[in-house]
Amino acid sequence: MNLFYTPPEKVQEHKLILVDDEARHAEKVLRYRVGDTIHVSDGVGSRHEGHISFIGNKTIQVDIRQTYSEQKPCELVLALGLIKNRQRLEYAVEKAVELGATEIVLFKSDHSERGKVNRDRLQAIALSAMKQSLRPFLPRIYYNETLSDAVTGYNDHVFIVAHEKANDETLELFKHDKNYLILVGPEGGFSDDEINTLQKNKARVISLGKYRLRSETAVAALLSRFV
Amino acid sequence: MNLFYTPPEKVQEHKLILVDDEARHAEKVLRYRVGDTIHVSDGVGSRHEGHISFIGNKTIQVDIRQTYSEQKPCELVLALGLIKNRQRLEYAVEKAVELGATEIVLFKSDHSERGKVNRDRLQAIALSAMKQSLRPFLPRIYYNETLSDAVTGYNDHVFIVAHEKANDETLELFKHDKNYLILVGPEGGFSDDEINTLQKNKARVISLGKYRLRSETAVAALLSRFV
Repeated sequence: MNLFYTPPEKVQEHKLILVDDEARHAEKVLRYRVGDTIHVSDGVGSRHEGHISFIGNKTIQVDIRQTYSEQKPCELVLALGLIKNRQRLEYAVEKAVELGATEIVLFKSDHSERGKVNRDRLQAIALSAMKQSLRPFLPRIYYNETLSDAVTGYNDHVFIVAHEKANDETLELFKHDKNYLILVGPEGGFSDDEINTLQKNKARVISLGKYRLRSETAVAALLSRFV
Repeated sequence: MNLFYTPPEKVQEHKLILVDDEARHAEKVLRYRVGDTIHVSDGVGSRHEGHISFIGNKTIQVDIRQTYSEQKPCELVLALGLIKNRQRLEYAVEKAVELGATEIVLFKSDHSERGKVNRDRLQAIALSAMKQSLRPFLPRIYYNETLSDAVTGYNDHVFIVAHEKANDETLELFKHDKNYLILVGPEGGFSDDEINTLQKNKARVISLGKYRLRSETAVAALLSRFV
């Protein structure tokens, strides 16, 4: 099944429209035609099934037959220190979305070697991963200059920090029945200062085993533990 | 810490040599010099620490000061249906090694769209991931034409199959105290025939959650569950 995306403002009671890239992709690449059944997510919890009633210039109109809605899950926010290698950063974002992150906050960590982020590109990757995994919610990507800025506003979240040098090895699964903020450092991990800051925020600092993991691997390994 | 690799036949009682790419990388890229401390794994359980006594043409000689040896862990074999996208296949191999796969068997699954594998390149990626994660054992990469061939010889392993349509959602961690064969299909998953074959082999067929995961994500998610 292919899932498409349209923002909620493009959805009316019995109709929706796909525009721009989504419309083009459906028509030109996947060869959808008038009358075909199509599935469209609005990124805020609803997936619409309908048939195509009209194809215009970068526009596809869909008559909605059925709508499946999901309740917003508890938050599972990933705060990730910037990784130098662009491909690995993109991979981390893709895997995070596939594995259920509800929001991604990138920040310049003490050991981050790189300051710039193409947020539009990362948001597009998140959208693609949402569609691929058939998830109904689109995670937003944010960027902050520092770890302190990144964690601001998440006071009511349980902080879980992946840290190579931690003594507390996770031998457990986490039940995703409350809001979590998961923190993963860049290559080289968090600095001692950052770990101190996080511990002051009552973070639980855990190890993902005795071998060294790349950042994007730690993201996948940690998010896989939430069920 | 940088870890290098040399095969066991290049290790003597108090000396070892690094050759070819490993020697070149140490000298030309990382600028190691005579007298520097260096760490070298033999890929079969030992990590040697020593200092460089001589640098020649594509050769580095190391006087061993200390050797750390690890017992071979129980096997955690990944059998992976070939993925069409080369980058995703390479990613799956890299993540599998980082997360503790002891051997990787690729096979042409019913839904695989691609028949050829550059095994040398994948083996190089496995080596690089071994060094990166500081693991002392080098997983070997194998290739088989069919699923039946791929599982041959693993009769004493517990088979765990990731399958989107399974009812049995894993809400558990697996204790890695016996030999496992982990099976992950290509994009599109396993065919019904393949699932039947595996169930005849007493495989446990599990789901990794209700959302669709890419193959390389399923590899990371499943291997992360072994502690």
